[in-house]
Amino acid sequence: MIRLMGIDPGLRFMGWGIIDVDGNHLKHVASGVIGTDGSESVPLRLCELHGALKKLIREYAPAEAAVEETYVNRNGSSTLKLGYARGVALLTPAYEGLPVAEYGAMTVKKSVVGTGSATKEQVTMMVKRLLPGAEIRKADASDALAVAICHAHHRASAAHVVAGKRMA
Amino acid sequence: MIRLMGIDPGLRFMGWGIIDVDGNHLKHVASGVIGTDGSESVPLRLCELHGALKKLIREYAPAEAAVEETYVNRNGSSTLKLGYARGVALLTPAYEGLPVAEYGAMTVKKSVVGTGSATKEQVTMMVKRLLPGAEIRKADASDALAVAICHAHHRASAAHVVAGKRMA
Repeated sequence: MIRLMGIDPGLRFMGWGIIDVDGNHLKHVASGVIGTDGSESVPLRLCELHGALKKLIREYAPAEAAVEETYVNRNGSSTLKLGYARGVALLTPAYEGLPVAEYGAMTVKKSVVGTGSATKEQVTMMVKRLLPGAEIRKADASDALAVAICHAHHRASAAHVVAGKRMA
Repeated sequence: MIRLMGIDPGLRFMGWGIIDVDGNHLKHVASGVIGTDGSESVPLRLCELHGALKKLIREYAPAEAAVEETYVNRNGSSTLKLGYARGVALLTPAYEGLPVAEYGAMTVKKSVVGTGSATKEQVTMMVKRLLPGAEIRKADASDALAVAICHAHHRASAAHVVAGKRMA
């Protein structure tokens, strides 16, 4: 059995999901969304995301983490903000000593639904089906669980997994 | 007397500089560049930047930090990588309890040289003139000191300073 954490990064909403994987069996452990106040400064919002992720990692002790690759849009300023949030999503588990994998949105969709062109609704539906009994109220939490499921399927492939080590 | 830290963010090279400010008198304390290995994974490189910045903040104990706003270019992928580094540059001092200010490149140039259209060489020359006796070997360190000098000039204006608080 291995416990995995999926993260769907965003500065306003950071989705997270923890699953236990035992062979082909998947079990929902916990999931949710870390929200930050848009009226606060960016450094403080990044502190909130970092602190909350750190707390979750210490509470649930996942063995590995997986982060969804952020959509790169044409607006440089939005991309930069996504970069801040994604930087924290990549840094925090690695700094806690976890290996961190990254998956593109297409790979996540294909892994969960079977096709890279799946809609958001199809992903949510399949996440619920793959993790029966889980109460998933928010879309960002569902996306984070989808990344964790994707990692459960791909983690044998070393190319996707990156060694993490504690630097503190 | 107040001690300030300037940071010029980058994933490959993160410049840093510490100065002491006493009224109009500026004094170079220390400066340098944190380099990360481009062949390593991004999560590990972010860990190195975060760990090194944290160590410097604890060693030199600056009271405030200032970060240069990264140039947003047209390449979404490069912007995202700059975003990661800048996210760590904003997060780390804030998480250590320091107020973090942000300044655009034009503001930094205007503050140090007197004109927003100053060249990189002019900035380096003026930084050396304003901090006599300092041995500054790398351009990124000089840019970080320029941000610290800019913050020394602007910090009275509350609009540029953002409250930081320790979340750990």
